Amino acid sequence: MPRRIVIIGAHAAGIDAASAARKTDRTAEITLITKQAKAGYSPCGIPFVLGRHIPSFDNLVVFPPAYYRMMKLDLRLETTATNVDTEAKTVKIEDKTGKQETLHYDSLIIATGAYPFVPPIKGREKKGVYVLRTIKDGEIIDKAIGEAKNATVIGAGLIGLETAVAFTERGLKTTVVELLPYVLPLMLDEDMARIVQKMLEEKGVTVITKNAANEILGADKITGVSVGGERIPADIVVVATGIRANTELAKNAGIIIGDTRGIKTNMRMETNIKDVYAVGDCAESTSLVTHRPILSQLGTTAVRQAKVAGINAAGGYAAFLGCLGSAVTKLFDTEIGATGVTEFMAGRAGMKTVSATLTSKTRPEYYPGALPIKIKLVVEKNTELLVGAQIIGGEEVPQRINALSFAIQKQMTIRELAKADTCYAPPLNETWEPMVLAAELVMRKL
Amino acid sequence: MPRRIVIIGAHAAGIDAASAARKTDRTAEITLITKQAKAGYSPCGIPFVLGRHIPSFDNLVVFPPAYYRMMKLDLRLETTATNVDTEAKTVKIEDKTGKQETLHYDSLIIATGAYPFVPPIKGREKKGVYVLRTIKDGEIIDKAIGEAKNATVIGAGLIGLETAVAFTERGLKTTVVELLPYVLPLMLDEDMARIVQKMLEEKGVTVITKNAANEILGADKITGVSVGGERIPADIVVVATGIRANTELAKNAGIIIGDTRGIKTNMRMETNIKDVYAVGDCAESTSLVTHRPILSQLGTTAVRQAKVAGINAAGGYAAFLGCLGSAVTKLFDTEIGATGVTEFMAGRAGMKTVSATLTSKTRPEYYPGALPIKIKLVVEKNTELLVGAQIIGGEEVPQRINALSFAIQKQMTIRELAKADTCYAPPLNETWEPMVLAAELVMRKL
Repeated sequence: MPRRIVIIGAHAAGIDAASAARKTDRTAEITLITKQAKAGYSPCGIPFVLGRHIPSFDNLVVFPPAYYRMMKLDLRLETTATNVDTEAKTVKIEDKTGKQETLHYDSLIIATGAYPFVPPIKGREKKGVYVLRTIKDGEIIDKAIGEAKNATVIGAGLIGLETAVAFTERGLKTTVVELLPYVLPLMLDEDMARIVQKMLEEKGVTVITKNAANEILGADKITGVSVGGERIPADIVVVATGIRANTELAKNAGIIIGDTRGIKTNMRMETNIKDVYAVGDCAESTSLVTHRPILSQLGTTAVRQAKVAGINAAGGYAAFLGCLGSAVTKLFDTEIGATGVTEFMAGRAGMKTVSATLTSKTRPEYYPGALPIKIKLVVEKNTELLVGAQIIGGEEVPQRINALSFAIQKQMTIRELAKADTCYAPPLNETWEPMVLAAELVMRKL
Repeated sequence: MPRRIVIIGAHAAGIDAASAARKTDRTAEITLITKQAKAGYSPCGIPFVLGRHIPSFDNLVVFPPAYYRMMKLDLRLETTATNVDTEAKTVKIEDKTGKQETLHYDSLIIATGAYPFVPPIKGREKKGVYVLRTIKDGEIIDKAIGEAKNATVIGAGLIGLETAVAFTERGLKTTVVELLPYVLPLMLDEDMARIVQKMLEEKGVTVITKNAANEILGADKITGVSVGGERIPADIVVVATGIRANTELAKNAGIIIGDTRGIKTNMRMETNIKDVYAVGDCAESTSLVTHRPILSQLGTTAVRQAKVAGINAAGGYAAFLGCLGSAVTKLFDTEIGATGVTEFMAGRAGMKTVSATLTSKTRPEYYPGALPIKIKLVVEKNTELLVGAQIIGGEEVPQRINALSFAIQKQMTIRELAKADTCYAPPLNETWEPMVLAAELVMRKL
């Protein structure tokens, strides 16, 4: 009898798990279940559709129907998994017509993702208050932009800032409200975050930090947001204060949830219950720096976990060793990236670190088009190991983050980085690579 | 008495050595000697001035006169070092007026660079045949372009191709002649080189490989180049068949020259003679992959060697561990980079390797502006260590080369690379980083 693999969730994590399972076991019966009407799209692209960089939401669908046919995946759209019985190895599902069915599995992969967390702000239930997670959310906001003049985004994380940029690009007067002292608090330290904030302000975005949105004002139609006693006008409010792992189904099935609120897994992405795996935004990882559990909730982590779970669920062997939370974005023309831990996060984890920030250019001064770049490196004091990096600049930030991510993964010391062999050509970059110069700067403080 | 440091050569290597020496010893007397009328410029930028990407040759001067004053460096322009006596620790110099002087040194740094090697092609002495190494060479060629219609470049290395691109951009019908079977033979394997060749041909450059330039034709004015019995019309011929280390002065002083024709040094960049160092295009390095001597002759290697020699010459301690020959260029809109060894070079060094080439895009398919990228990885078969990489693409090639250079330096296995944590954002790159996918491709062949 063919192996039966059931996957709950059909975005990056679910589908990459299914693909890996299919490549491992050609005859397995693989069923994908999703509540949504569309599967296999890139949610990370949504703010860039709002900003009109991508023509339409349909473009975000990365896996067309033909893919499921080719890979022989049984995709059930608009279908909800209502119960998992890990003794009987069954999943109860219900489609949009209310029809119920019980699926038997040999391996189960939970890729239920996460939902936008909306704090209890007074008036949050009003019309005109949105979250941004699905294409449906995106379509609703896109429509609302048409008639709006002012927007407020609550939360200055990646999604919040990307959405604020899109609003500004669409001509809305936009305000971002962040409870914490600075923007992108999961990626950057305060000194680097201030640079991003200044850039946003120069582009016309109003940024209010260290303040809560107290109330969403207006009756039928919202008119503004009350922040620290002040009224900020707003026709649209987007709440982007973070996401929470969808773990109810798992919890009800007796699966252990970790302190991060994500599902606990081992190196094979298996939960505490045999043959049940968890991947993506609902699943924990281990930090390669602190060796503690973290909830990465990045697409790149999701697909890497998914591949490992898919192989294991199909009878193969693969291990996921952890992640660094390497992340990047582009806000207007500025690229912002980070990997490993920030100075602040390292301190909270009890690590003693030394940091330095280098300011340089992306190309030689004499080559037209050189752009500024700022690199902050965080180094563990005793071992002199690189443990984190933050970069803000106009060119090649993502691949510098990848280079430093490789360095952290391979336990490069700051002395090794200061001697690293790099490439150079005038139209592309500088003789002395800024990452190397930043390493020297840290060494002087050791 | 202050320490006396004499440096022969005043470009990247010489000046970076001087700067490092000054930072190590504030009171040292540091003298820089150069034959040229201009010091401290970037020769790598010359082809890009010819192509009009950089406004003028003067822009290439990276170290202005104020720099030498600030760093208290005694710069002697248009001055030749005629003899080194390592017993007496003296250098004889002669300025352009014929005035001679004997300098005493405590430490000597030889940064004499390299000269363009011109093979014995019939007619090579004719007017209209040039080499491209100095700003003076560049100015002469720039002037010659004005009246020319056809150009031939002999040699398809980095300088040869960059010059051919510049000629094409300036409207000249340009032909490149290469003796070896493919272009960029020190950077790329044949399969990758073919892609570059095709791109050049599409842009209008004629590329002839596996053929020697037999004769330069014409009397008063050159009219063409004879290649394999065919006559290629040419008003300008640039010979770019490689450079040779300037080692005569060192050789005459009893300093040992290695098999690479470069000056032999130890880890401190010291030659076989105490207190005499050698750096830059005239000095050998050790390959971090093969652990054999190589002549890197790259600006990035030069400055790293120079810093080490400068510190040691001034009484400090620093070590240069070797290099990977990481290199990159931009030809028209295509970025081309390499690090470590090619498949071909690995084979010649007796290594057994496995390689694979991945074709992907720089951004998600749905994000406008995604460009093609091709990544070839070379892996040592028994250890599964990454030993080389070649990349051709439209975006972020330099920093991908740096990332893979870090991976090679830190002995990353191909399995580790296939699991590496990378960053992602739709406007910038793909969820599955092409370097990681290329690693998977290699793994399937192991």
